[in-house]
Amino acid sequence: MKNFKITIEYDGTEFVGWQRQPNGRSVQEEIERALEQITSSKTSVTGAGRTDSGVHARGQVANFVIEPKVSEEDLLRSINGLIADDIVVHAIEEVGESFSARYSAKEREYKYYISKRSTALNRHFCWLCGYDLDLSLMNQAAMKIIGSHDFKSFCRSETKLDHYLCSVFAAEWHFLDDNQIVFTIRANRFLHGMVRALVGTFVDVGRGFTPVAEFENILNSHNRQRAGQSAPAKGLFLERVVY
Amino acid sequence: MKNFKITIEYDGTEFVGWQRQPNGRSVQEEIERALEQITSSKTSVTGAGRTDSGVHARGQVANFVIEPKVSEEDLLRSINGLIADDIVVHAIEEVGESFSARYSAKEREYKYYISKRSTALNRHFCWLCGYDLDLSLMNQAAMKIIGSHDFKSFCRSETKLDHYLCSVFAAEWHFLDDNQIVFTIRANRFLHGMVRALVGTFVDVGRGFTPVAEFENILNSHNRQRAGQSAPAKGLFLERVVY
Repeated sequence: MKNFKITIEYDGTEFVGWQRQPNGRSVQEEIERALEQITSSKTSVTGAGRTDSGVHARGQVANFVIEPKVSEEDLLRSINGLIADDIVVHAIEEVGESFSARYSAKEREYKYYISKRSTALNRHFCWLCGYDLDLSLMNQAAMKIIGSHDFKSFCRSETKLDHYLCSVFAAEWHFLDDNQIVFTIRANRFLHGMVRALVGTFVDVGRGFTPVAEFENILNSHNRQRAGQSAPAKGLFLERVVY
Repeated sequence: MKNFKITIEYDGTEFVGWQRQPNGRSVQEEIERALEQITSSKTSVTGAGRTDSGVHARGQVANFVIEPKVSEEDLLRSINGLIADDIVVHAIEEVGESFSARYSAKEREYKYYISKRSTALNRHFCWLCGYDLDLSLMNQAAMKIIGSHDFKSFCRSETKLDHYLCSVFAAEWHFLDDNQIVFTIRANRFLHGMVRALVGTFVDVGRGFTPVAEFENILNSHNRQRAGQSAPAKGLFLERVVY
């Protein structure tokens, strides 16, 4: 048996998310079904990040253990041949048996896109947010989350965890063009709904509703009720996972 | 009655093209239907370019004559409120009665995107073309079409026109990133299927199948049979129209 690591791009629009669900298409299930067809046995695929419904990925990473009958290159081709065209597996490599896409990950990077004007071409890939946003204020708030913090204020309230500590290595807003801004965040781990809750709260800061000092209070309150609304899933991209 | 010019973005994936067709959704029909709801009378909308099924637009221009009951701003909002979300009208302005989006246009710009690797996120917006392409050769060929030429070799053979002369102001290939290249072309007019036939032939040049000198012979042959295959519609974008 061999352990394989794959790197996956997907358009999350038509998925219930990464994780297998009783109803609806999941990325995990599509890949597991392809592997079952290839290997004639049930295979379980572990992803680095459980992206929600509508969230996209440019560099999701997953692993699975199978008894391969063909070369890695042919295996990659077979998987891509069997899955729908809103998922593409870009790379495959054999890894040590202890490798877990989820538990071996040291860092994950997400991006979140906001468009100031309606867009037809990009409508599934950004949050349409018509407000005037002060990016400088948003970046002052973003600087407050760099380092190790308890992010319970930005975690779905139904999620129960041992601890809510995450180490954020980078968090910054940039202009992409006249109409679009993008937030990039890198951290060792992400809690459920964390990026979307952060983005919603940063937008409150950018609109002038939430002062930067209040943003810091929200972070330190460890109370999801204090933070802003969750930004829509469609603006969020899992960019890459570092091991 | 007032003549209005509108600028339109659309995702061509789910359309039979710009032009009204007996079967299937067209951009023209969607906008005409919205205007009919707003004005309670049949309105005809003229587009600058009749994009084919699957072709996208970032800056299509159209005009229509109506008796407006509201401000331009409200009219824009009403149209966008009534059309589907794969069309967005970005601008509206009143123009002189002689203005025709089609006949008053002095210049149109198209872009064509080619991706070297499969892409899930961008699958509706580029041609997946895995060949190694020599961009320098493709640009040598592109230079041959600059100026005024008879483009019958790159026009759908069933299209009958008085003449096939087009003045090309710019035609160039660029790298967008490691995996994508883009062709930009500006001309006073475009024949039916012209950009897609040019792109298909440029790719033959880039693959080393068609020497640049042969490309020039194809252009001068005025024979569609000599040119390459038509590139897929989904890589093509009408960028803007200049008046």
